[in-house]
Amino acid sequence: MDPFLQAAIDQAKKSLDEGGIPIGSVLVRDNKIIARGHNKRVQEANPILHGEMDCLNNAGRIGSYKNTVIYSTLMPCYMCAGTIVQFNIPKVIVGESRTFPGAREFMESHGVEVIDVDDPTCIQMMEQFIHDKPELWNEDIGEL
Amino acid sequence: MDPFLQAAIDQAKKSLDEGGIPIGSVLVRDNKIIARGHNKRVQEANPILHGEMDCLNNAGRIGSYKNTVIYSTLMPCYMCAGTIVQFNIPKVIVGESRTFPGAREFMESHGVEVIDVDDPTCIQMMEQFIHDKPELWNEDIGEL
Repeated sequence: MDPFLQAAIDQAKKSLDEGGIPIGSVLVRDNKIIARGHNKRVQEANPILHGEMDCLNNAGRIGSYKNTVIYSTLMPCYMCAGTIVQFNIPKVIVGESRTFPGAREFMESHGVEVIDVDDPTCIQMMEQFIHDKPELWNEDIGEL
Repeated sequence: MDPFLQAAIDQAKKSLDEGGIPIGSVLVRDNKIIARGHNKRVQEANPILHGEMDCLNNAGRIGSYKNTVIYSTLMPCYMCAGTIVQFNIPKVIVGESRTFPGAREFMESHGVEVIDVDDPTCIQMMEQFIHDKPELWNEDIGEL
């Protein structure tokens, strides 16, 4: 297992333990994690804090993102993908996209490299969550 | 002057007074403002709190956005536009797009109605800010 994806999974599990949505993210530069985050819709009643957004929030004002890679346990939605494009983050590594297709083509059309690991742990985690809390999931992806 | 655009301008001016980036936003439903926000990159050292994002953050978990209109003093960037698309916000009214073209076509291609008021106050405010603090502006739009 890629240790950075594992760190993102650990964030997702932390969120689940808190009663939240199990999606986690880490931002990596020079082969080191510089920020971690997870979805906080439930925890902070905040609709914009998807895992990737919370991670970028936690990274603070780092200036250029040109040498960074963002990891997420799930393919980014349009909010997170739009942020990746706007911030010029060149590379995204995701745990899976089977449970949510996200905005891969949009990111690729803007020159972002997207790698989908298709990780069984990530898939199982989201399948279980969507099964257990479908309304919360639909709220998080704007489909209420 | 549209009172909702005026409220967004008031938010932008508040940010400027705080030493921040002068971009403001309000979220309107049933002809009433339900949330206000402004860019907080400087104030909270937070790169994801553009005016629109701060406004949606402040709105909290409202569920469906289908009867909402979001106002912004400036055309939304890809982060904010991606959020508008993901949240299914149907209509965006912006103060101007002369100083920053933003992601109008992206939003329109996803069915969002975009109205650009081309307001002289909004244009002047951003022109002055970009003139005074070009590095801060370039940081905010991911062009460092």
